[in-house]
Order: sequence, then C-alpha cells, then structure tokens
Amino acid sequence: MARQVAVCGPNDCTDQEREWAVEVGVRLADAGVVVLCGGGGGVMAAVAAGVHSRGGVVVGIRPDDSSGERASRNSQGAAGPDDLTVTVRTNLGQARNAVLVTSADAVLAIGGSWGTLSEVALAMRLSRPTIWLGGWQIRDAAGDPVPGVTTVDSPGQAVAAALHRPRWTDA
Amino acid sequence: MARQVAVCGPNDCTDQEREWAVEVGVRLADAGVVVLCGGGGGVMAAVAAGVHSRGGVVVGIRPDDSSGERASRNSQGAAGPDDLTVTVRTNLGQARNAVLVTSADAVLAIGGSWGTLSEVALAMRLSRPTIWLGGWQIRDAAGDPVPGVTTVDSPGQAVAAALHRPRWTDA
Amino acid sequence: MARQVAVCGPNDCTDQEREWAVEVGVRLADAGVVVLCGGGGGVMAAVAAGVHSRGGVVVGIRPDDSSGERASRNSQGAAGPDDLTVTVRTNLGQARNAVLVTSADAVLAIGGSWGTLSEVALAMRLSRPTIWLGGWQIRDAAGDPVPGVTTVDSPGQAVAAALHRPRWTDA
Amino acid sequence: MARQVAVCGPNDCTDQEREWAVEVGVRLADAGVVVLCGGGGGVMAAVAAGVHSRGGVVVGIRPDDSSGERASRNSQGAAGPDDLTVTVRTNLGQARNAVLVTSADAVLAIGGSWGTLSEVALAMRLSRPTIWLGGWQIRDAAGDPVPGVTTVDSPGQAVAAALHRPRWTDA
Repeated sequence: MARQVAVCGPNDCTDQEREWAVEVGVRLADAGVVVLCGGGGGVMAAVAAGVHSRGGVVVGIRPDDSSGERASRNSQGAAGPDDLTVTVRTNLGQARNAVLVTSADAVLAIGGSWGTLSEVALAMRLSRPTIWLGGWQIRDAAGDPVPGVTTVDSPGQAVAAALHRPRWTDA
Repeated sequence: MARQVAVCGPNDCTDQEREWAVEVGVRLADAGVVVLCGGGGGVMAAVAAGVHSRGGVVVGIRPDDSSGERASRNSQGAAGPDDLTVTVRTNLGQARNAVLVTSADAVLAIGGSWGTLSEVALAMRLSRPTIWLGGWQIRDAAGDPVPGVTTVDSPGQAVAAALHRPRWTDA
Repeated sequence: MARQVAVCGPNDCTDQEREWAVEVGVRLADAGVVVLCGGGGGVMAAVAAGVHSRGGVVVGIRPDDSSGERASRNSQGAAGPDDLTVTVRTNLGQARNAVLVTSADAVLAIGGSWGTLSEVALAMRLSRPTIWLGGWQIRDAAGDPVPGVTTVDSPGQAVAAALHRPRWTDA
Repeated sequence: MARQVAVCGPNDCTDQEREWAVEVGVRLADAGVVVLCGGGGGVMAAVAAGVHSRGGVVVGIRPDDSSGERASRNSQGAAGPDDLTVTVRTNLGQARNAVLVTSADAVLAIGGSWGTLSEVALAMRLSRPTIWLGGWQIRDAAGDPVPGVTTVDSPGQAVAAALHRPRWTDA
C-alpha cells in the first residue's frame, strides 16, 4: 500500500502558505504518496490542487456531509472539489481531525490556526511523525520549547522530512 | 467529482457473496465510480479485489488504526490491503459504519450480518439510495415489509440500481 | 459503577410507545440504573421524563452540538432538556448511535424506525444484550427469523430482561 | 439544564496538578456544575475524586470501550471508576477529545501534554471559553503569544473564570 501523508493547514491562509501547499502537493504526488487533507479551502484546497496537477491521489476528509463545493466557493482562490480524488464526508465535526491524523503515516502542517494546532497535537499524541512549516511554537509552562515536532523552512524540506521519517506502523 | 458508492457486507461471507462482490467491484470500476468499503475481509476484500483488477479507485474505511493486513490474513481467500488505493484508519470502532455510509452517494449491501444491517439502516436513516443483494428482510411489528430498500437478485441489477438512482446531494 | 442501560426509539413515536418509554424510565430509575438515550424527542424525551420523575440519572447523547431545546420544542408532547441530567453533545451525526450503544451494558429499544434499527443492529454487532419492545422483525434471506434480540411485550418485561441479563463486560 | 464544564489534563501528572484537579472538582461540584472529563487517570481521576467527594455529577468520556478500571489501576494514586457517575465509552480513540470539548460550556485544562493541548486547541477552534492552569504556552511563527486562552494561577481563579465566562450557546 502506498505511504499516506496528511497535509493540514488553515482555511484562511496567507499567499505564501498557499504557494507552499501547492508545492508540497506536487512533490508528494511525484513521490507516489497518497495525500490526505481536510477537504476545505486555503491550505487544504491548495495542496489538493498541487496533487491533482500531477495526476496524484488526494483524499478530502471533511467535517460535514457536503462535498465541499460551498466551502470552496467561499474561499478566495480555492481549488474546487474536482481536485479531490475521493471525498470522505465524515459528518463528525472537528472529530474528523483525529480521523485525518490517524489515517496518516506522517503529518505535515503548513501555517497556524487552532484547528491546525489540534491536528499537530493529535499527531504527536498518536506518535505520528509530525512536520511543521511556518507553524506555531509550543513551549512548556517554564517557557522551554516542547520537543517532538520537526520544524522546517521550505516545502522541499517538509516533504523530505515526511518521506525520510520511518513510516508509522501499528505492528 | 466522481460518484461514490459504498459496498457493504459481512467479513464472514459465502462463496456466492464473494463472487458477487468481485463482480460488483468490476462493474463499478468500469463505470468510473469510486468504491468505498469497510476495508476488512469477506465481501469487503472481494469488492476491493474486483475494483483493483480493473484499475479503479477503492477506499477502505477501517474501524481500527491498522492497515488491515492482519484482518485480511485471517480471512480465507481475502484480498490483501494492496488492493486498496487508500486506507482511512478511523479508529472509531463501529461508528465508522456511519462515516462509510455518509460518504456515499448510494449504498450497495451484499449478504447479511448485524454489521451490514447497521449500515443498511444508517443508509436509510440518511436517505441514501440503498440496494441489497442477498440481504435480510425487514418487517414492521405487524409483519409487513418495511419499504425503502431496493432488493435485487444479481450483481448486474445491483450496480444498475446504484448507478440509476439519482445521486444523493446535500444541496 | 452503576449499570447503564440505553433506551432507543423513534423521534416520531405513537402514544403507546411514549407511555411505554415513560414507564421504562420510571422502572429503570427505581432500579438505580443510569439511563442513556439519544437526547431527542419522542421515545427519547419520554424515557427522560420517566427517569427524571423519579430523581434518576439520565444522559442525552445527542447527534448535534445543541442542547436539544429546539428538537424538543418541535416534538409534540416531548419532555424538555431539563429532564436530562447530562447532555453529551457529540456533533457526530448518526455515528453517535454507536457511542450510545457502546456505552451501555444493555440496549432496550421501543418501537421501530431506521435509526432505531441501526442501534439494535449495532448493539447485536457489539454483543450487548438487546431487548426490543414493539419493534421490527428481522429475517434472513430465506425468510427465517434471525435470532439474538430478546423481544418482549411490556415495559415490565423489557426492564426485567435488561436487568436480568448479565452486564456486558470488556474483561 | 446545569452548566457543564470539561476538565482536561494529563494521565501522567505531577502531584501539584493532582491536588489542583481535586480542588477544581470540589469547587465545581459545590457550584452545582456537571463536570466532564476523559475518564482516565492523573488529572482526570483526581477531578472525578474531587467531584465525587462532594456528591456532584461527573461524567467520564473514555476513548475506549472499557469502564476505565484497568486505566485507573495503572495510574499511581488514581481514583477508581466508582468516582464516575456515568461512563461514556465512546470507543472513538482520540476523536473523543472533540466529543468532550463539544459537550462543554467551558473547558478548563490543568497541566500540559499533547492530548491536553489537542483539547485546548479544539476548544478554541469551537469557541468554547478556555482556561488553562499550569499549561503550555502557544506562540505564533514570530514568537508572539497567540491570544484567546485564559491563563490562571490557582484552582480558585480557574473555577471563577469557568463560571464567570458566559456559557457557550448554539443559539
């Protein structure tokens, strides 16, 4: 079975984050990886567009039971649901974040938001290799950085880290 | 976006149900439909094998967080996880039955079991077109058949019904 | 910990089913059982009213993230959310049916509907003792009754069966 | 219906966090609040013990389908499941974190861990009033604190903040 990488990020993202997400999608597709995302706008739509542009497989795991057309239409510059190979309509609300992360061999986040942070935290909780590009910083009560997340500076580094890390296994 | 059809059925199935499931998979793949299944053995593995044999896209939506290798190994004659294009590891237990059904434009069940019945009932509850091949019978307290499920006698009829029925829409 | 019994049934129920549900709630509360229900109208509201009238603990496990006030208001003769000791707002849609059943030591259904059938089927799939009062009939492909569900004719029999059956255990 | 407050925190916690959690449980119970927790050890068991000591209602929303006895037994100094009024056995894995937070009118976290962080992030994502005692720090990519979480220094402040903040409403 192909390696599966989840790409997470805000619906409201910056232009740079969108560009990063497209490039991440292109690179993952070229590596033959199945890409999972949340099926929304912003980073989610951009990574889907990147994967689709290379003929790769990209799955949108949505929080509601729609196909994401309205969500996409409301997001400036968002790719349409036609970029998604498959749409999993969970109707689980934000509990879908756990489904997205659990399904992945590695989790790659781009940019920061509370939803994205929840996915990074769940990924760490579930021992998935976790990579963050342009993300938030997490420090403990004493102000020291909490280790565990691999922070990177470019889409190339992000994808290399996601592919290099040993695949998560339940064995 | 491609039409998505969920194919449900027992892990412990008969030889006939397994043959039906392979044929259903072949026919749905040839029609360009994305096939969703529970990612286990029996009917689930057989439909995946059918889709895979035609180069189609088939998604396993699993109840645990494994890739299904052990499940498949334990099922006589089961197809391996290599037949699955994507594995969604929900780790939701039987709540994944709702995710599977909600994601589908139509639900096609083959054979009977309590898990399969739960998927048929959820599909009807969620107004998905529901087709049952070789399935159980549901009667009300007075002994009269409860209408709603389309019962069919062959894989060809099942697939025709799944494709003919208007696609479920949230619009 | 107290024994927990889930009481399931239609939002649109008959007067008799509503009366049965109130009596079931009264009897379970008097037996010191924690009652779980779906937190909606109809049978769900009636069982909550029965439990509340005896000062028992009743939990509404809802499919959305509301407190059920609107749902109750729309249901003729429905008890209000003030009857519920606790409201679990799952926002999981019909996947909450699995949460409700999994949480129970026994499942007691009253009346028939597709949602209720899904809960009965999930309860059987998960090996919970399952009792059905005024419910649907399930037959296999040959027309023979599928064994497993305890069918009863009165609230007293239903509660006796739910209390008599050994409690489900994960040990 | 009573106000519901979720209390989150690590299974492996410090002695101070455990003492804080007991005191938070006592104060919330005395205020007539229904307390929700994850049903595990550490902070979860301690808050349950605090609520139980005052005769309050405390619900354990567990990630698996057990009653938590084994989890508690493995946690040094943990309270037993007998402290829980109700156990919701979700069997949803870490997706239960979303159910826990969604059910709450306010979320009060004690101490830091990846699981706790996921609950804080989900609470913020879902616009629940969120209070953190002895918690981690969240900064954006530029190193500036991300606003939103109410940080407090004592159980008294934590409970006051949870009770003072307007209750979350879906209206």
